[in-house]
Amino acid sequence: MVAANPRHRRPVKIVATFEEARRAATGRVGLVPTMGYLHEGHLSLAAAARPEADTVTMSLFVNPLQFGEGEDLDRYPRHLERDAALAEAVGVDILFAPPLEEMYPVSPVTRVTVAGLSERMEGAARPGHFDGVATVVAKLLAGLRPDRAFFGRKDAQQVAVVRRMVGDLSLPVEIVACPIVRSVDGLALSSRNAYLTADERDRALALSRGLAAAADAADAGERTGSVLEGLVMAGLQEGAGVDPEYAELVSVDEVQPLPYLDRPAFLAVAARVGATRLIDNIHLDPAESVVADRGVRLEGRDLFSRDDDTRPGGH
Amino acid sequence: MVAANPRHRRPVKIVATFEEARRAATGRVGLVPTMGYLHEGHLSLAAAARPEADTVTMSLFVNPLQFGEGEDLDRYPRHLERDAALAEAVGVDILFAPPLEEMYPVSPVTRVTVAGLSERMEGAARPGHFDGVATVVAKLLAGLRPDRAFFGRKDAQQVAVVRRMVGDLSLPVEIVACPIVRSVDGLALSSRNAYLTADERDRALALSRGLAAAADAADAGERTGSVLEGLVMAGLQEGAGVDPEYAELVSVDEVQPLPYLDRPAFLAVAARVGATRLIDNIHLDPAESVVADRGVRLEGRDLFSRDDDTRPGGH
Repeated sequence: MVAANPRHRRPVKIVATFEEARRAATGRVGLVPTMGYLHEGHLSLAAAARPEADTVTMSLFVNPLQFGEGEDLDRYPRHLERDAALAEAVGVDILFAPPLEEMYPVSPVTRVTVAGLSERMEGAARPGHFDGVATVVAKLLAGLRPDRAFFGRKDAQQVAVVRRMVGDLSLPVEIVACPIVRSVDGLALSSRNAYLTADERDRALALSRGLAAAADAADAGERTGSVLEGLVMAGLQEGAGVDPEYAELVSVDEVQPLPYLDRPAFLAVAARVGATRLIDNIHLDPAESVVADRGVRLEGRDLFSRDDDTRPGGH
Repeated sequence: MVAANPRHRRPVKIVATFEEARRAATGRVGLVPTMGYLHEGHLSLAAAARPEADTVTMSLFVNPLQFGEGEDLDRYPRHLERDAALAEAVGVDILFAPPLEEMYPVSPVTRVTVAGLSERMEGAARPGHFDGVATVVAKLLAGLRPDRAFFGRKDAQQVAVVRRMVGDLSLPVEIVACPIVRSVDGLALSSRNAYLTADERDRALALSRGLAAAADAADAGERTGSVLEGLVMAGLQEGAGVDPEYAELVSVDEVQPLPYLDRPAFLAVAARVGATRLIDNIHLDPAESVVADRGVRLEGRDLFSRDDDTRPGGH
């Protein structure tokens, strides 16, 4: 687990409105946007923000706009008290937890769309998802006015969409992308891991194992997109009970398919494990050590280890 | 003409980038977004901003995103020196005149759309127009961070779209709508009036005359939308050489058709005079003196009077 920062022992201030959040912030503001039900991935973003900001604001809002019909909006895990304690422990100053009426006092008719980057992979699998993401992130950046905003590379396509939106709309904020945090067994942390049974969790390791195999091949000189993608898919098809959706090598900025690894890229995978849809990726940069970012592994148990009884649905 | 403000004799500072514009601004910032080729309508917005702001910033950018195929983007009048002198005379502190490369360093793929309010009238006549408006206004508000932004009621539907976008995206800015400024003969000021020949300018008076007739009827108790719209259309169809597009009574906030004037509304008209497309409107509020805003008439000649040789294309 990310260590508590002893220099920041101020109690976290929970606010419900944009105006309170702006008023409570001083100096350089670092924003960590989340949908709550925090795990070490979120906490690592707050920890990255802490030394770079006078005020670390974490937003916590389960954004209906980015959920599609039949997705898990209603059962998405929520637990404000628990989140506030975890946020405070890593030095978050302000927890912006707006009720739906603050975010959408009237039914919102404005949408922010980012064409081109939003259409493949998660955009194809979840129609309207990135419009919902771009709209709510534009709103958080416009309304909270951070100097920097911290996003996890777990949602690599989201990072690309947000970066492009910020540039196109001249939002004066720097987007910082942070490494994926993985459990000791390799599973990328996700609030949705809370849905997995013990058996499903074991099967879910096929995603990170496939990516690790592809990363090893890239390290050994493999550059062909279809070969790297094939290694990920092979890992998925071995395991019963894992329903693969895609494995794609795409450019980091434009999110376009790469037949050949000749520029910064990420190799992304999506699969369904039981009723739960999971995604994962690794970042590859041929100009660097090839595998630029496989993510960071926790050394001990994560917050959602099986015997942690704060885990919802865990029985 | 709007009088120069003797208290503000600072020279206007012309800047080309968002960052310079933000750095040059102090205290409360009032923004007047324009496409340049200033007339008294724009200057009245700056004059309204002046007492309410420590820094008055005027932006000047002919935004390609809000022009359709075959529209007048290429011939839209431009004259920076003239605009700077006029802006300075009314107390503008900062003239933000970005080159295309500052506004769009890469081809923008992000669009801001405001559904529902954008679809009738100007939205129907100019497909994509309000997406372009909402996108560039979001960008100016995000990048310049004004406390208030001043828009003319001449573009009444634009005011509704911008207000809704600002609310939906939680942009911390107050939108101030200011009255239409009219020539002594009633013609609503517009940079596009510069395209009109003397004969076309005479014919163009049919728009404001029709609106005035409808305003008189509303003052006398008429409340039926179709009757008020009919009075405007009758005025247009009298005059040869005027090609009417629409006359519509719509609600101020939602821009929805009103069969009956029972809430704040505007009565809008669009027509083509020769090759030039013109729009005009009056605001009606049954809770007030009925005709809340017919616009403000200039007492003398306007900047584009026939013998003003700064007027382009006038011969």
